[in-house]
Amino acid sequence: MFSSAFRRYLPVFDWGRNYNKDSFSNDMIAAVIVTIMLIPQSLAYALLAGLPPEMGLYASILPIILYAIFGTSRALAVGPVAVVSLMTAASIGQIAESGTAGYAIAALTLAMLSGGILLLMGVFKLGFLANFLSHPVIAGFITASGVLIASSQLKHILGVDAKGHTLVEIVVSIFEHLGEVNLATLLIGVSATLFLFWVRKGMKPMLLEMGLKPRLADVLTKAGPVGAVVVTTAVVWIFGLDQSGVKIVGSVPQSLPPLTMPSFSSELIGALFVPALLISIIGFVESVSVAQTLAAKKRQRIDPDQELIGLGAANIGAAFTGGYPVTGGFARSVVNFDAGAETPAAGAYTAVGLAIAAVSLTPLIFFLPKATLAATIIVAVLSLVDFSILKHSWSYSKSDFSAVAATILLTLGFGVETGVSAGVILSIALYLYKTSRPHIAEVGLVPGTEHFRNINRHEVLTSPQLLTIRIDESLYFANARFLEDYIYDRAVDDDCLKHVVLQCSAVNEVDFSALESLEAINHRLQDAGIQLHLSEVKGPVMDRLQRSHFLDELSGRVFLSQYQAQEELASVCTRQTAQAPA
Amino acid sequence: MFSSAFRRYLPVFDWGRNYNKDSFSNDMIAAVIVTIMLIPQSLAYALLAGLPPEMGLYASILPIILYAIFGTSRALAVGPVAVVSLMTAASIGQIAESGTAGYAIAALTLAMLSGGILLLMGVFKLGFLANFLSHPVIAGFITASGVLIASSQLKHILGVDAKGHTLVEIVVSIFEHLGEVNLATLLIGVSATLFLFWVRKGMKPMLLEMGLKPRLADVLTKAGPVGAVVVTTAVVWIFGLDQSGVKIVGSVPQSLPPLTMPSFSSELIGALFVPALLISIIGFVESVSVAQTLAAKKRQRIDPDQELIGLGAANIGAAFTGGYPVTGGFARSVVNFDAGAETPAAGAYTAVGLAIAAVSLTPLIFFLPKATLAATIIVAVLSLVDFSILKHSWSYSKSDFSAVAATILLTLGFGVETGVSAGVILSIALYLYKTSRPHIAEVGLVPGTEHFRNINRHEVLTSPQLLTIRIDESLYFANARFLEDYIYDRAVDDDCLKHVVLQCSAVNEVDFSALESLEAINHRLQDAGIQLHLSEVKGPVMDRLQRSHFLDELSGRVFLSQYQAQEELASVCTRQTAQAPA
Repeated sequence: MFSSAFRRYLPVFDWGRNYNKDSFSNDMIAAVIVTIMLIPQSLAYALLAGLPPEMGLYASILPIILYAIFGTSRALAVGPVAVVSLMTAASIGQIAESGTAGYAIAALTLAMLSGGILLLMGVFKLGFLANFLSHPVIAGFITASGVLIASSQLKHILGVDAKGHTLVEIVVSIFEHLGEVNLATLLIGVSATLFLFWVRKGMKPMLLEMGLKPRLADVLTKAGPVGAVVVTTAVVWIFGLDQSGVKIVGSVPQSLPPLTMPSFSSELIGALFVPALLISIIGFVESVSVAQTLAAKKRQRIDPDQELIGLGAANIGAAFTGGYPVTGGFARSVVNFDAGAETPAAGAYTAVGLAIAAVSLTPLIFFLPKATLAATIIVAVLSLVDFSILKHSWSYSKSDFSAVAATILLTLGFGVETGVSAGVILSIALYLYKTSRPHIAEVGLVPGTEHFRNINRHEVLTSPQLLTIRIDESLYFANARFLEDYIYDRAVDDDCLKHVVLQCSAVNEVDFSALESLEAINHRLQDAGIQLHLSEVKGPVMDRLQRSHFLDELSGRVFLSQYQAQEELASVCTRQTAQAPA
Repeated sequence: MFSSAFRRYLPVFDWGRNYNKDSFSNDMIAAVIVTIMLIPQSLAYALLAGLPPEMGLYASILPIILYAIFGTSRALAVGPVAVVSLMTAASIGQIAESGTAGYAIAALTLAMLSGGILLLMGVFKLGFLANFLSHPVIAGFITASGVLIASSQLKHILGVDAKGHTLVEIVVSIFEHLGEVNLATLLIGVSATLFLFWVRKGMKPMLLEMGLKPRLADVLTKAGPVGAVVVTTAVVWIFGLDQSGVKIVGSVPQSLPPLTMPSFSSELIGALFVPALLISIIGFVESVSVAQTLAAKKRQRIDPDQELIGLGAANIGAAFTGGYPVTGGFARSVVNFDAGAETPAAGAYTAVGLAIAAVSLTPLIFFLPKATLAATIIVAVLSLVDFSILKHSWSYSKSDFSAVAATILLTLGFGVETGVSAGVILSIALYLYKTSRPHIAEVGLVPGTEHFRNINRHEVLTSPQLLTIRIDESLYFANARFLEDYIYDRAVDDDCLKHVVLQCSAVNEVDFSALESLEAINHRLQDAGIQLHLSEVKGPVMDRLQRSHFLDELSGRVFLSQYQAQEELASVCTRQTAQAPA
């Protein structure tokens, strides 16, 4: 008992017991590849978040180790990611000026809050909340964020000062500063961007053609961004381009992650709470999607509630060691997985690699141009941009399309927080609207079967005295009156009608409001000399109806199947018809 | 065409054409009875709203006439009602001090905003939004408001100054002022309250026993509150009790409703917008419930969207003629209906009666003690208090119970706006939560039928190679992953399994997110050598699936009925079983 609970909350004791030499060497190789990839990426994402570059490195060290202990995914690589970095910049940019001590402390506080929220959600098993972010909303959000991030990096490529958190603000600001473009910066930025696109698309095929082993070609491709870093840094240093206005990273402290304190000021926490909540949920969704995709490939399982705890611990770790909000990233996790990582220990080795980099390599990046980092970001995020979701959702469902379109437009126009909140609220509102006006079909018997279908779509048998209505929705407060109105409209003018059967095969719930509507329908039909029957009522619904007085008051009966109802009531009808003329 | 559109938007042209002498005399009698009842009630509700008493009368004159022109209910009586008066006091009490000119202007502005919101909702046919207030939330809200209103009137009965918009505030404030109780006021207040309770319960049986005709007994009973007004006014005047601290209504202007201007200040409108929205929706729900109940008794129909226009016009009328937010009241409408009102003209005659009262009777109520008006309110609202909804909803459904309980507690504890908003949000959240974890049943064939039921509840036939799952919910983003997890968990360990059939009789929608989940399920099952089939897919769902690639990729088939699926797949299974050992 104790040991199973232990393994439940500390998955490290699960995989740790079977750790062997093979696992070690596989994990080690993956760690080296990921470390090489992460060094420029961590610096770049810190730049995107408006933070000093070392904070990107620090955010990748302790968080990775904490996730390795508490998380359930074996391949997930935790650290700064593009979307969360952008959201960090947007939310703390309203509180302090980038580059000030207050800005860095706000970033630490955001990480602490986000970690706390994730931990609480994990403890209370609220992982299911992430399901309310629909696929179209996520897809629209990722695409719009990609555009937003890429455009926010343009200023570094051009070497101008531009500001803004929305597409319009950014574009206008860039146009205003277009006269100040720095040619040396532009040259470096554009070459780095083109080179990195080529690394992504054309380098590996070329290396393979040159006869390199696939594994080596792979490692060299992953090291491409490091190549860009080394070359552009060297160019700036040799030609003294920092004197001609090329912005460089400058001096970065040479140290292990420091012990830092987030702020506990209630004012700051109040201002950051909503952004932290959104960052937590978005980060969690991104992370869990990646983890589940990778786990599925090896038939492993992810426990979303334990993932919340793993990510919560990672963020709290980031808050106290000079980092900022982190989550499981797509690109780095896929690289980790492809490189053969077997256990979360690979993450721990990556952390050691990054710690060595933080201690020893930072003087080497003094002359690293910011334009190179911006190029790294642009190339990474543009691969996420995919507007085809608009086309696919349009052809499938207009309401899914409107959720995507609203998410994209509002994210671009008003920033990430507004965009994703509006997308979620709109998709829930559209769902509720649809359930409030359910599809209701009049059904009849398909000849030769015991099956009933819509009279407007199939050739079916009906009886003039028997009206069978199939309600294609659970009955609850939002549609209770709709059903009442439908039945009154349909039944009131039909003089032949003696029996109304509600086929409840699609009714998954009858709530208290709907129960009152059913009671009202029963009485109104009774007043008009019509009996109300139910058929195919599901177990859980029946259990509940039996706890009310409705079944005692029901003028008709409850049939196990619609076929039984038809059999019995149609014969009654025939008898009645025969009697009627007498 | 023109005339039918005319009648649609101006129902007065519908009933007005058939108006005759009989209708006139019936309407006239109803109008006299309602007028007698409304005079004290209008004064009392103005007191509840913290406004001068004449505003209650003014709010009953033009609004009634406008509703008669634009509304669809033949018996609804529009004017100040208890809940809306309380909400008015709560919302404008935060902006100005009761008794000031700013307070009265805020009330006019609230009526204008509320009227504008109702009109817009009517034009855009948003009447369905009211369906999102569930019966339990409405019942809980009405009961809690009744308690809140009655307790807010205690200070007038005790003759003390007390404040507060929540139960705790009111009770604490009354206790603090308990030393200042005015005995004469208390005596008048308690006697009036007891008398009015007796009028409600015991007077009519007594009059009937004394041999009076039922109709006369009825009219006398309705006049009971007027009796209390006359007697207590006389007592205060004769004994000069206003000198001993009994608070009286004092001088009320003797005039027709004046022409007034609400404020168009954007600051005030901003502050009152949310309260106005809530007042509009609550007032609309109260009004439509009453109208529909009464219409059903005479087999008439109410058009909720046109009701919005009628109520909107009434509120805008109130805003420009010295009134405050109005709606269709329960008590007055029932009295109007019972008194035999045939058409909305009865309302117009009532308006004339009240106008006469406003012009001629106001000097007579100079000595009317406020305690009597408070007694009128207390007796009226306590009849609405009904805590049995707690018991009924508890035994029927715990989630309906929690919505009721939250609405009652939050209304009492934090006021009406918080209470009803929380009730609506909680009931929607609980509904979404339930749909996000749908009931999923494994089903089998009920012997001797073509009907399939849950294997855990019925004795049914199954086949080891065929798993049939009935999902009791529409498939949408919130539950798409839940289904994926369920199927993987169930199918992965079952080595015999060759076919999974999703019986879609309860699936009323498959949204884009769920489509992606179905595609994922299809691929995962295919990888494990299992075919996925669908059965009983509804017309609208099938239409949509045909617009995607899913049906092309589906490893199995789509069956019209589950029975067909069982017939064909079970035989395939048997053949496969026979071949297996070979």
